[in-house]
Amino acid sequence: MGDPNGIGPEILATCLRDATLTREIEILPVGDPQVLAPYWDPETEARDGHAWPGMEVVSAEPGFVLSPGTADPLAGALAMASVARAITLCLQGRVDAMTTCPISKEVIARAGFDVPGHTEFIARETASSDVLMMMVSGHLRVGLVTAHMPLSQVASHITQERISRTIRLMSTSLKRDFGIRHPRIAVLGLNPHAGDGGVLGTEEEQIIIPTMAGCADMAELSGPFPADGFFGSGRWEQVDGVVAMYHDQGLGPFKALSFGRGVNFSAGLPIIRTSPDHGTGFDIAGKGLADASSLKAALHVAAEVARQRATTNMNQQGAEQAG
Amino acid sequence: MGDPNGIGPEILATCLRDATLTREIEILPVGDPQVLAPYWDPETEARDGHAWPGMEVVSAEPGFVLSPGTADPLAGALAMASVARAITLCLQGRVDAMTTCPISKEVIARAGFDVPGHTEFIARETASSDVLMMMVSGHLRVGLVTAHMPLSQVASHITQERISRTIRLMSTSLKRDFGIRHPRIAVLGLNPHAGDGGVLGTEEEQIIIPTMAGCADMAELSGPFPADGFFGSGRWEQVDGVVAMYHDQGLGPFKALSFGRGVNFSAGLPIIRTSPDHGTGFDIAGKGLADASSLKAALHVAAEVARQRATTNMNQQGAEQAG
Repeated sequence: MGDPNGIGPEILATCLRDATLTREIEILPVGDPQVLAPYWDPETEARDGHAWPGMEVVSAEPGFVLSPGTADPLAGALAMASVARAITLCLQGRVDAMTTCPISKEVIARAGFDVPGHTEFIARETASSDVLMMMVSGHLRVGLVTAHMPLSQVASHITQERISRTIRLMSTSLKRDFGIRHPRIAVLGLNPHAGDGGVLGTEEEQIIIPTMAGCADMAELSGPFPADGFFGSGRWEQVDGVVAMYHDQGLGPFKALSFGRGVNFSAGLPIIRTSPDHGTGFDIAGKGLADASSLKAALHVAAEVARQRATTNMNQQGAEQAG
Repeated sequence: MGDPNGIGPEILATCLRDATLTREIEILPVGDPQVLAPYWDPETEARDGHAWPGMEVVSAEPGFVLSPGTADPLAGALAMASVARAITLCLQGRVDAMTTCPISKEVIARAGFDVPGHTEFIARETASSDVLMMMVSGHLRVGLVTAHMPLSQVASHITQERISRTIRLMSTSLKRDFGIRHPRIAVLGLNPHAGDGGVLGTEEEQIIIPTMAGCADMAELSGPFPADGFFGSGRWEQVDGVVAMYHDQGLGPFKALSFGRGVNFSAGLPIIRTSPDHGTGFDIAGKGLADASSLKAALHVAAEVARQRATTNMNQQGAEQAG
């Protein structure tokens, strides 16, 4: 449910009421029942034909009082305990995937967790060394070579190693998680106009193009493309994934095109994890204003990837038995 | 008509056939008649009810042969002579505005013009020292603090002077050219998450925010906003203009949102000049594949600004006569 005082419980309740969604996906809320209570009155919901899905109970520490919109370390502790439980459920195969509602970096730090967010925590708990955050919206999938660093440091972090790692993780995920046997991946340039033949920067010719040549066996690569026109021209529709060089280059156009329905997918984990692409929304929590579109999309992507991995595993087993 | 061998003449002919457009805007082609001839057969057009608008003739140099898709210095010379003529027409008040079709930087360089493009040429010819390229699509208007430079140099070019210049030019243009009496301008941060309180970069706190404080009299300023979510969330709809810190940060989301109907407007010139937001399209020139949407939008914006400036001038004269 993410931070109990954020919009997580509220948008989860909205999803539980969505018959189209719940017909397709069995949702198991993980957390303390008192957190969901303000947004789900069993009597009213039953009258309206909304079934209670049951719950995996993780109890809040004594003294916790729900207070939408506030930053509370006890809330952060509950959120992280719930994430830990969901990881266990995934690893034990009791659920097929997990979708996490937003947490606050600041709140979980005050709760004593020394990780910047969900992804790093899940990577550590599942002993995964190589994780790639992919933004997904329909067939638009964007991965970043660099992410959370000052813009002044981006250029010096564009290395052959980081680019090939991103291409490799994206290619593997497109095959395994999205069922694309021969992934087509577009790579964006670092500089305006992708360097314009060296006039506006040399990283394309010195780093990006040679790296792409070395990664030709991983996917059908194209680029480096000028980033500004790539999304508006619809060029992205001709590929299965897009590798962007830095945060705003990839996420600005992605968010402009995904209209609030973008999903984070953590590629490279042994378990399946998605999340909506927004924050805790402390300013609107508990006010009935939160939009559940991104969470719904995150649940759909989690389910799709789960089905795809099951298919892939079946095919592999079939091939092994046949072989 | 831009480069005669690009898509310019072709998309111009498409505009001349658009009755909705020509009812509202009187279009005067500027250039050599032989360039438009392949795309406009007077007999066929007359039969279809498309009136010949007349032409401001600028003759090609001897030896020029039209050859769509090729880079020809004689074509570049004709394109630039036509631009010079259009500037004269504007300065003499014989037309209200000019719209330029795309030229090739490389071709005009080979034709002996030592300017990177239209904007710089027009600025020089009209003795304008301070020009701001604004991208316009409906109410979405984006101006850049830095533009054509390697990404590695962007951060060091983010100065108080450059930011306040951009805000000033945009504010003046919003008032004079778009009739917005009290412009609201949003400023984007440089770093991911607009620096996240200094964790992801300090330019917001050290440069951008202090500059904005000093520009408070120019416009109603807001920001600095994280650039990635600003466009997708629709936050841009609450302002009249957006100041982006660098090329791809502003133009990536702009092009994603404007769907091929973006327009360049050169703010700060004594004359009115717009252009479509695409290049010469040498690869598709003469094949009937070019999309005239952006040129149509560019003609509309030029006409709107011309009407607005006329209104502003009338009001000023009225105020002077009354005063």
